[in-house]
Amino acid sequence: MMDARRLFPVDQVVLREVGLRDGLQLTRHYPTTQQKLDWLSREYRAGVRHFEVGSFLPSTRFPQFADLRVLIDATSRLDGAYSTALTLNERGVADALETQVDEMIFVVSATESHSMANTRRSRAEAIEMLARIDAQRRAGRSDLPVLTAGIAMSFGCSLEGEVNPRDVIDISERAIKAGADVLAIADTVGFGGPAQVAWMVRELRRALGDDQPIAMHFHDTRGLALANCAAALDNGIRVLDGCLGGLGGCPFAPGATGNTVFEDMVFLCKTMGLQTNIDIDGLLAARKVVAASMPDEPLHGALARAGLPKVLEDA
Amino acid sequence: MMDARRLFPVDQVVLREVGLRDGLQLTRHYPTTQQKLDWLSREYRAGVRHFEVGSFLPSTRFPQFADLRVLIDATSRLDGAYSTALTLNERGVADALETQVDEMIFVVSATESHSMANTRRSRAEAIEMLARIDAQRRAGRSDLPVLTAGIAMSFGCSLEGEVNPRDVIDISERAIKAGADVLAIADTVGFGGPAQVAWMVRELRRALGDDQPIAMHFHDTRGLALANCAAALDNGIRVLDGCLGGLGGCPFAPGATGNTVFEDMVFLCKTMGLQTNIDIDGLLAARKVVAASMPDEPLHGALARAGLPKVLEDA
Repeated sequence: MMDARRLFPVDQVVLREVGLRDGLQLTRHYPTTQQKLDWLSREYRAGVRHFEVGSFLPSTRFPQFADLRVLIDATSRLDGAYSTALTLNERGVADALETQVDEMIFVVSATESHSMANTRRSRAEAIEMLARIDAQRRAGRSDLPVLTAGIAMSFGCSLEGEVNPRDVIDISERAIKAGADVLAIADTVGFGGPAQVAWMVRELRRALGDDQPIAMHFHDTRGLALANCAAALDNGIRVLDGCLGGLGGCPFAPGATGNTVFEDMVFLCKTMGLQTNIDIDGLLAARKVVAASMPDEPLHGALARAGLPKVLEDA
Repeated sequence: MMDARRLFPVDQVVLREVGLRDGLQLTRHYPTTQQKLDWLSREYRAGVRHFEVGSFLPSTRFPQFADLRVLIDATSRLDGAYSTALTLNERGVADALETQVDEMIFVVSATESHSMANTRRSRAEAIEMLARIDAQRRAGRSDLPVLTAGIAMSFGCSLEGEVNPRDVIDISERAIKAGADVLAIADTVGFGGPAQVAWMVRELRRALGDDQPIAMHFHDTRGLALANCAAALDNGIRVLDGCLGGLGGCPFAPGATGNTVFEDMVFLCKTMGLQTNIDIDGLLAARKVVAASMPDEPLHGALARAGLPKVLEDA
């Protein structure tokens, strides 16, 4: 296993901006490359260091990610910044290995139905592909990118409804055995609540050890993203995904809110006394750039409406 | 001390609808009496049993609460339902004692500045008034209404910024000594986060005993209401305030979200395995009535946009 701790140091809260990938997955409009670069550099100046910037998919079908290589290059020129991209098959990995991307995410579903419906692969076949991808990266680039297994539908499934949390632990263990360095546990459809998150984190850490880097990826579909983040942080998770303005809806709930609102997540960390090195005012300024680049997309988030509390304003 | 456990039984989650009071405190428009009664009865049918229905204030200045007595009467005719009203001075208490109201809330500020600015009374004077109100209710009605001390600005103050949490414990203890049966700890301006809530609940229970009924009242001003509810529930709190559609803004943050969204709070409890006896579909239907009665007031809430997850739909 490569040292994923370079990207995700122990005991340092890492808030990862996934808007340039997950936030644009479903939007009808998307920013120009120049607007994306502006978004990236403004958030970087506000202190953000981890960016999911796209998905290695055919640009004919996913034009919103056609400039992915430009964004990876731009990120690699920012001191201390890291880029992440989805690589959903060997073709995507081959493309990724020709770039300086720091982290590749391969997605495995927690449920068999979603795995088959989404990728026409069983979960077992997905784990086999993950092992091949691990071998592929080792053959392909001397400075290995981190390989992360994203576990989709970890707290509920759009097809199966309830998900057995033991299945999530099981597939997570298999993903690590197959070669993943990092886990990203995703509540893809926003079904989960904080008690389930707390249980999951404790069981994952028991199964895989406290050394295992684990990211949590929540959606605010049913309003519990920040409660889930708090539960994850309380139980030792230090890597959380979010998106400025909470872009990124849910394909199964039209009109629903999207990813955890990034700026509100930073505020949550501040109230918990956790250092993020991220400046909320800088984020709110960056948010305006995102809004201007996609005027038809509704942005979410409480802090943008209410402003910072007096406590932090004075700080 | 009267037995406040009649209203707030140990180990039963009580979600109190405060929309008819706190939700209407700041709105430019408010429902007609008939619309309020419809709101009340629909939520009652969905399983809600605790309603804050208004404030005993001069109806010339607060016309939205002019029909308070009608709502108290209506609540008293609903089997197992309880009404609560604010009584901010002896005049209000005298008026309340002529009704069948089940609970009177007297508000004390956690900070001296807010106490003086809001009521022209010091905190010490407010506690003295609370003691007089306790005597007044004992002289005034044989079936004593519960007396609750609402502690405003408990997690941050619009005037002072940071609030010393020890001051909140201190004023809470003094309020109980002065005769209050119940505490309602309020994050009036939405400054608090879940770690502060957890600390506060643990310290309050340590100071006052696990038998002391304590309600928590959060505002979603900065997006943390549900995270704060989860932290409160995790630490043993069983009484939470909320409002259908999250009505009730913040006077210090124009445009901000209001009270904890009631229906999302019920969903949170369900994800935590806590029984509320409240039907979310019934709430969503009631919400439509509220929306229709105040077409210009923005309603908030994730569940109304996204719908129930498949897990609960099938249940």
